[in-house]
Amino acid sequence: MGKMTDRKAIRVPGFLASGISAGIKDNGKRDLALIYSEVPATACGVFTTNRFKAASVLVDEERIKGGSAQAIIINSGNANAVTGEKGYEGALAMARAVSESMGIDENLVLMASTGIIGERFPIEKITGNVDSLVEGLSRDGIPTAEEAIMTTDTFPKIVGSTCSVGGKEVTIGGIAKGAGMIEPNMATMLSFIMTDAAISHDCLSRIFKEVIARSFNAITVDGCMSTNDTAIILANGIAGNSSVDRSSEDVATFRDALSAVMVPLATSIVRDGEGATKLIEITIEGARSIEEAKELAYAVANSNLVKTAFFGEDPNWGRIISAIGSRDIPFPTDSVELYFDDVPLFMNGEGRTDSEGRLPAIMKKDTVRILLKIGMGEESFRLYTSDLSHEYIKINALYHS
Amino acid sequence: MGKMTDRKAIRVPGFLASGISAGIKDNGKRDLALIYSEVPATACGVFTTNRFKAASVLVDEERIKGGSAQAIIINSGNANAVTGEKGYEGALAMARAVSESMGIDENLVLMASTGIIGERFPIEKITGNVDSLVEGLSRDGIPTAEEAIMTTDTFPKIVGSTCSVGGKEVTIGGIAKGAGMIEPNMATMLSFIMTDAAISHDCLSRIFKEVIARSFNAITVDGCMSTNDTAIILANGIAGNSSVDRSSEDVATFRDALSAVMVPLATSIVRDGEGATKLIEITIEGARSIEEAKELAYAVANSNLVKTAFFGEDPNWGRIISAIGSRDIPFPTDSVELYFDDVPLFMNGEGRTDSEGRLPAIMKKDTVRILLKIGMGEESFRLYTSDLSHEYIKINALYHS
Repeated sequence: MGKMTDRKAIRVPGFLASGISAGIKDNGKRDLALIYSEVPATACGVFTTNRFKAASVLVDEERIKGGSAQAIIINSGNANAVTGEKGYEGALAMARAVSESMGIDENLVLMASTGIIGERFPIEKITGNVDSLVEGLSRDGIPTAEEAIMTTDTFPKIVGSTCSVGGKEVTIGGIAKGAGMIEPNMATMLSFIMTDAAISHDCLSRIFKEVIARSFNAITVDGCMSTNDTAIILANGIAGNSSVDRSSEDVATFRDALSAVMVPLATSIVRDGEGATKLIEITIEGARSIEEAKELAYAVANSNLVKTAFFGEDPNWGRIISAIGSRDIPFPTDSVELYFDDVPLFMNGEGRTDSEGRLPAIMKKDTVRILLKIGMGEESFRLYTSDLSHEYIKINALYHS
Repeated sequence: MGKMTDRKAIRVPGFLASGISAGIKDNGKRDLALIYSEVPATACGVFTTNRFKAASVLVDEERIKGGSAQAIIINSGNANAVTGEKGYEGALAMARAVSESMGIDENLVLMASTGIIGERFPIEKITGNVDSLVEGLSRDGIPTAEEAIMTTDTFPKIVGSTCSVGGKEVTIGGIAKGAGMIEPNMATMLSFIMTDAAISHDCLSRIFKEVIARSFNAITVDGCMSTNDTAIILANGIAGNSSVDRSSEDVATFRDALSAVMVPLATSIVRDGEGATKLIEITIEGARSIEEAKELAYAVANSNLVKTAFFGEDPNWGRIISAIGSRDIPFPTDSVELYFDDVPLFMNGEGRTDSEGRLPAIMKKDTVRILLKIGMGEESFRLYTSDLSHEYIKINALYHS
């Protein structure tokens, strides 16, 4: 495990960042961010699988094939999604403005957008402000960039760690924004990870996907997938370590340090989910495959009956049992075991009434751990979710667009 | 289409019904119902596919293989689900009590339960009250039976229709209970349909499943599947028509009359869904298969973002587009068209801003019709759902069990 870094002081060697207000948000808050590496960096990205992809995602998917990038420009307040040909041109123009202002290759500029979908993309507000965005770049700019990508996030999400690979200490820093919009719409997840490590593209890509599977792809707030979800990692090699690659024994070290950044970023998105009052950790053990474990974990996590019970601090475990039973997975019902923390609630096909006295204290905790053993195989999956509260309804229904 | 019958006056020839309070519910309301046919009836049933099936479902699934039944006993207030061997014995004892009290074959007695899951089944309250339940049987008893199967339903769900088949007028009457529990738990759906038509078992089974697919299997309140869902039809043949069978031209007539009972019962369950303020009808057209149409319809219906937008009367159509885009179905995004009632909102990959003025009036209606054309094929599916309101959270979180 890497060492955690204080979020206020976070710096990653060779990276500068900036965040300004370009007037895209109505409330005058910061809404335009830039992340810049002094040298072109090895770049990998993971994007939404939604069929309606935002213009920014379409451009990134093409550019990231080149394997390197030097800058990422991000706007909040408008998602530039389902905006047709004009939206796509707007996305290209947004990157071109950075390219021209900084004198770097247009193809090395990536981007992301978050905000309301289906509305005209205010490209002129962005292009007109890129010069001051560039001027604001600073080694201490990561927190202001984070501020500019936030929407209804109630706290900033910044995590750093360090580790030793290839004879050098390297730094990993990441920022993220989660489940909330200035005008509620899609709960877009964006995350940008920076490291000064030298690492081969193949190796970075493999490790990034592995860690994504256990972090950003292991969270759900409301089961809804955005048109804009984007996670990008840039590795600029400035640490001067001998490059981490497949054969290197440093792979595990680097992966653990990356997990130490990305897992806390992911769980902080859940904790700050719209209306969330609790973090619920659901672990499925004893599945025949990870996919099967995942399907069962999501069945529990996305059950509104389960989510509302946790909001009410009601240990209504029957809803969890019923949720896993609703999936077409042929586990033997008598072998299923359910625990909250270490307290057994269900086994041998019946509830454990002797455990009931211990439940109220568990239900009051702000993190609740659910363990389901299904007795079919050796695979497991851990998923993080939140409860479903009045505040979720209020945010998503009562603030009209 | 059959003629609708006044729900208060509903009678089905040859059927008697009864509903009493047996003290299973804490509040003294009716909680035990009996439906009885004067002669053994052709019987078909459709049950939950949840892997954790209630004891009543396990017993019914076995007995219904015989193809006939004469009585159905139903309790509310306790689901008798995940209650182990004792629960199963309780279910058998509940049917046996009816068999002994009425002098009919035990295997002709079906049953259903609804209420909290995982709690001890209070079989002694049921067996001790079966004699008075039987004494209460009456041709006018259908409304009291309905009352006894209700939990947090806010209105009774009774529909009748008639049609002419095989030279006689036949009657179809149905009752249902929906999405709500005396102590909130699972939103169990129960429905019992009675008809005096003579119809072959094969034909009844086929028609029942066809109509179920367009009624009870075309609704969702919160996407959660119960351990207890049960729909049973009894056809006692007392009308004396020449039997409806596969080759009969009366099949379509009977199916339409059955739809005229079951579709309104199904939509009334949605309208009375926990916290529901609106009925939302989602039609997918242009799919390659019904399964594909169904998957897209459920993606929209079970999106909490879509459901809360309707509660807020916010025409946030981007959430609908994003919901269908989240499924792994390769429709061409440019061919998708979205309408609210007959107002086009999205086509050619962009929003139709010229339609916006017409939306507020549509959003205020208590039934909203969403049409999505996906431009891939000829198949379609219609799904009914409700919105997601504060009341849902209140019912499911704040009334502790």
